[in-house]
Amino acid sequence: MSRLIFSDSPRSALLYAVSDLNPSSVHIVTDTTVARIVLPQLDLPWSAITAIPAGEEFKDLASLQQVWTALIEAGVSRRSVIINIGGGMVTDLGGFAAATFKRGVRFINFPTTLLSAVDAAVGGKTGINFGGLKNEIGAFAPAEAVVISATPFATLPVEQLLSGYAEMMKHALLSGPTQMAELLQFDPVTGSRDTLLQLLERSIAVKERIVAADPTEQGMRKSLNLGHTAGHAIEALAINRGNPLPHGYAVAAGLGIELVLSHLLKGFPSESLRRYIQWLRTAGYPRTSYTCRDYKQLVSLMRHDKKNTCSAEINFTLLSSPGTICIDCTVGEEEINAALDIYRDMME
Amino acid sequence: MSRLIFSDSPRSALLYAVSDLNPSSVHIVTDTTVARIVLPQLDLPWSAITAIPAGEEFKDLASLQQVWTALIEAGVSRRSVIINIGGGMVTDLGGFAAATFKRGVRFINFPTTLLSAVDAAVGGKTGINFGGLKNEIGAFAPAEAVVISATPFATLPVEQLLSGYAEMMKHALLSGPTQMAELLQFDPVTGSRDTLLQLLERSIAVKERIVAADPTEQGMRKSLNLGHTAGHAIEALAINRGNPLPHGYAVAAGLGIELVLSHLLKGFPSESLRRYIQWLRTAGYPRTSYTCRDYKQLVSLMRHDKKNTCSAEINFTLLSSPGTICIDCTVGEEEINAALDIYRDMME
Repeated sequence: MSRLIFSDSPRSALLYAVSDLNPSSVHIVTDTTVARIVLPQLDLPWSAITAIPAGEEFKDLASLQQVWTALIEAGVSRRSVIINIGGGMVTDLGGFAAATFKRGVRFINFPTTLLSAVDAAVGGKTGINFGGLKNEIGAFAPAEAVVISATPFATLPVEQLLSGYAEMMKHALLSGPTQMAELLQFDPVTGSRDTLLQLLERSIAVKERIVAADPTEQGMRKSLNLGHTAGHAIEALAINRGNPLPHGYAVAAGLGIELVLSHLLKGFPSESLRRYIQWLRTAGYPRTSYTCRDYKQLVSLMRHDKKNTCSAEINFTLLSSPGTICIDCTVGEEEINAALDIYRDMME
Repeated sequence: MSRLIFSDSPRSALLYAVSDLNPSSVHIVTDTTVARIVLPQLDLPWSAITAIPAGEEFKDLASLQQVWTALIEAGVSRRSVIINIGGGMVTDLGGFAAATFKRGVRFINFPTTLLSAVDAAVGGKTGINFGGLKNEIGAFAPAEAVVISATPFATLPVEQLLSGYAEMMKHALLSGPTQMAELLQFDPVTGSRDTLLQLLERSIAVKERIVAADPTEQGMRKSLNLGHTAGHAIEALAINRGNPLPHGYAVAAGLGIELVLSHLLKGFPSESLRRYIQWLRTAGYPRTSYTCRDYKQLVSLMRHDKKNTCSAEINFTLLSSPGTICIDCTVGEEEINAALDIYRDMME
């Protein structure tokens, strides 16, 4: 399990995390945007830096080779430490590079987006896209430490704050009514950074508890897929149309659809469903991005989700109430169509 | 830890190992030579086969991509099982492909050479060569099961039998005088396959004990480097000259040199050293492959061995007697030169 360091002084937190590991050398992996905007502010004492091109489309084998080659040229040894500084793309790819270089070099993550802080930087999933498939190649490899600070979020666009906040809402739904109510009340765009960091700490704790119980996703960890079977389909549909959605926007819609399914099949309370939709309509998320003509394609995309071990079934994580989780729920096409209808009605 | 299945009926052992894992599908990874010579004899019931080009020079990223792509095209899922059938090159690369596909698919190894049976198929080290460096990229990932049989050794050339037997001798030296005596008496080329399989079982048990105590090579696992600091230098020297040695031949010489060092620095008994050299001279291994003009290059190669965490020191695993191991012994250049001299004298 990774050591989590929450701090409003990321520079000293990183110095502390590194000194604690007593490495023979330090190498920073980042992307070109973060290298330009965030690194100068941090003023870190390590000069070995590899910046891969920014953007999800560069989370690929070519960038991975670029990092491996840079690590060789810099003389990185098994006793070195790699620091990944960036969004989920950097922490995923840099973590995988570290996990496979000389069969494993220790690494520290410093997520610079809300989404990567709440999601990608914790839990040991690393990887790259391959053969047109997301995260198809990767490993389970936890960071030695993750430094989490709200400081880099100050320069994030609204879209990225809302995208990360949707993953926090997922954790709240998995946790229970108290955390759900807390998040429904807070505004991540205008609210205080101190409060956001506190909410983030509690949100990450939910994920940590689940991952600790099942690090390699044999059972309970599947609960983290809440909102993601429908969400990934929404995301893929948008990409196919050449009009990509931020990941968290797709998850926010996916959560809505799967809460409707939870209500239909598992008795998730209508009052909680109503409150979630109400929040979604007012917090700044976009309206529904599909019509009934897209149902067939959405169902087909759900069927081919990586998590499905058998392509004949569609598996969901559902809730019978906030905090009460049912994994491995097999759902039929008609029920999915009904949920897509109801969600669309509620959002109009 | 992998499950080890020793059997003189590899086909039924493989069927048993697979059924035990209850996979959704089975995919075989092998090389073109093994696909032609060994697979037809095995007559296995699975038709999904990927054959990479045979030879250490193809243990690279291109072959890895070939395997990943084939796994995608065959629809391999997280519940599938991959069977790696071949020498160390296939089990290393196929194991790494499995360990990183969808963040980890279960795999079974069936080593077809003595060297891979005793060494590469057990212990969870997987990887590929990268940037001109051996096993530079990889992961620690144990096979679910390893099926070990002497059957495929029947078609191995003498050179490959002796190469594997040198690694067995290393385990015997780490184990103690009884196993050492047993191996000195047996002839792997003319001796019975049944006896060879029994010796192999005891030899692998030595490695298993050491790996179980230290799977990620923080301490005791370094004892398995016995013979390999000098051996890798001998191997690299031969490659640089365009006249490669089989890995085990280099290890056999490396063991000789490091036993001389053990005698000089740790009091390894001269009688045991003498017996080892006597065996080496008569078992069919080649004579010394270097002269005093090569000492400088050999020392430099030892200095840059991956296991050295700091390039100023040269680290060895040495023995104070058969079975009594000293890891992390720092040795100076003059002592190495002396050992290279003495070993050469003893072999002439």
